[in-house]
Amino acid sequence: MSDSHTTVEQLRQLVRQFVDERDWQQFHSPKNLSMALAIEAAELMEHFQWIDVEASRQISADAKKLADVGEELADVLSYTLALADSLGLDLADTLQAKMIKNAFKYPADEYRGRSGDGNDE
Amino acid sequence: MSDSHTTVEQLRQLVRQFVDERDWQQFHSPKNLSMALAIEAAELMEHFQWIDVEASRQISADAKKLADVGEELADVLSYTLALADSLGLDLADTLQAKMIKNAFKYPADEYRGRSGDGNDE
Amino acid sequence: MSDSHTTVEQLRQLVRQFVDERDWQQFHSPKNLSMALAIEAAELMEHFQWIDVEASRQISADAKKLADVGEELADVLSYTLALADSLGLDLADTLQAKMIKNAFKYPADEYRGRSGDGNDE
Amino acid sequence: MSDSHTTVEQLRQLVRQFVDERDWQQFHSPKNLSMALAIEAAELMEHFQWIDVEASRQISADAKKLADVGEELADVLSYTLALADSLGLDLADTLQAKMIKNAFKYPADEYRGRSGDGNDE
Repeated sequence: MSDSHTTVEQLRQLVRQFVDERDWQQFHSPKNLSMALAIEAAELMEHFQWIDVEASRQISADAKKLADVGEELADVLSYTLALADSLGLDLADTLQAKMIKNAFKYPADEYRGRSGDGNDE
Repeated sequence: MSDSHTTVEQLRQLVRQFVDERDWQQFHSPKNLSMALAIEAAELMEHFQWIDVEASRQISADAKKLADVGEELADVLSYTLALADSLGLDLADTLQAKMIKNAFKYPADEYRGRSGDGNDE
Repeated sequence: MSDSHTTVEQLRQLVRQFVDERDWQQFHSPKNLSMALAIEAAELMEHFQWIDVEASRQISADAKKLADVGEELADVLSYTLALADSLGLDLADTLQAKMIKNAFKYPADEYRGRSGDGNDE
Repeated sequence: MSDSHTTVEQLRQLVRQFVDERDWQQFHSPKNLSMALAIEAAELMEHFQWIDVEASRQISADAKKLADVGEELADVLSYTLALADSLGLDLADTLQAKMIKNAFKYPADEYRGRSGDGNDE
């Protein structure tokens, strides 16, 4: 599988099958999944907590660390997909709508080179 | 766009273009993005913090709430995609590898109907 | 030590001494400490992610689980104290000021029995 | 109130009274409070997400920003105290026990100037 040849739905099926085979839908309420997602996001952060911003940009050069970080990112993605299933949301559609909204909120001319601060990207 | 007809790469391009137009790669170190991801995951959780697990399963019946939750989920996904870009990781490949590893860690026969507890899904 | 006979400053000294003996102030920037605090809060949540709200109220009856949860809560507290040191803030004074502000934001008559939703407590 | 002259119990009473006056114990299960704590920790992080580690050390020089950060830290502390109430834990005792455990896990001689990485402090 590769990002260029895999649809979002195919990723959703991968996670859905895993959950179904274990009969884990009973645990997958939106409340519980939102906690699981936040926990995995924190485990991802753990790899970067004591290093500088610049050092974090070099992490891809260390194959072992990149693999560890990749596993946490996969966990985050798997719960994002499970939440979309649990809520009945189409992710591509939802993302596209949000990016259009963001484009109005952060006009490129005004925000070029300036972070959106504490605002949503 | 819909999950059935959209590749992961197309979603990545959507976010990449938004970031490029604002020259925001300078803020998008893995360290900063991991913080942004955790912050968005927390904003998603906020919708479920005071309600019961069962009530959270009914949230899709409320169009306004579902839209609000969807926006937070889109934010989580956008930073997941940005992190994959920043790290140079293929998400479909990384997710597939992690799900295979999870299948060994949580054999279906042993974990059917039992949560993986504090372990990674 | 007990909460009735221990000042906040005494707890701060406990953490400060630990940090000083290891020469860890160099890692304790507010940015890094805010990440560490969020990570410990997530580890605390992990104990509750797959159980119901009511079941979480029974956790104190299980001495082993209570001890595990207590350790995570201690980690959260230690980083809260370290952050106060790093920022030069008096916690008792800051908390008191915030509770007064909250009392105006959430008048008791209006919010009795109604959660403050996504708002700050 | 000041950290030197305020006991932990006095801070607990401040939060307990606020919660009691609003009849909010019904929302304050350990599961919900652990979410609230993680959400407040994320709001604190938001102030540091796009700035460098060194810049975060200068934040105390900006009175407005310091006040904003202080409010989030107060929220984190208030939920830490509420969780201790909900679980029936003495915080001073729990913290002291954890710091002793940490001192064995991270001997000062071995860890001087070296972060504990992804490990608990």
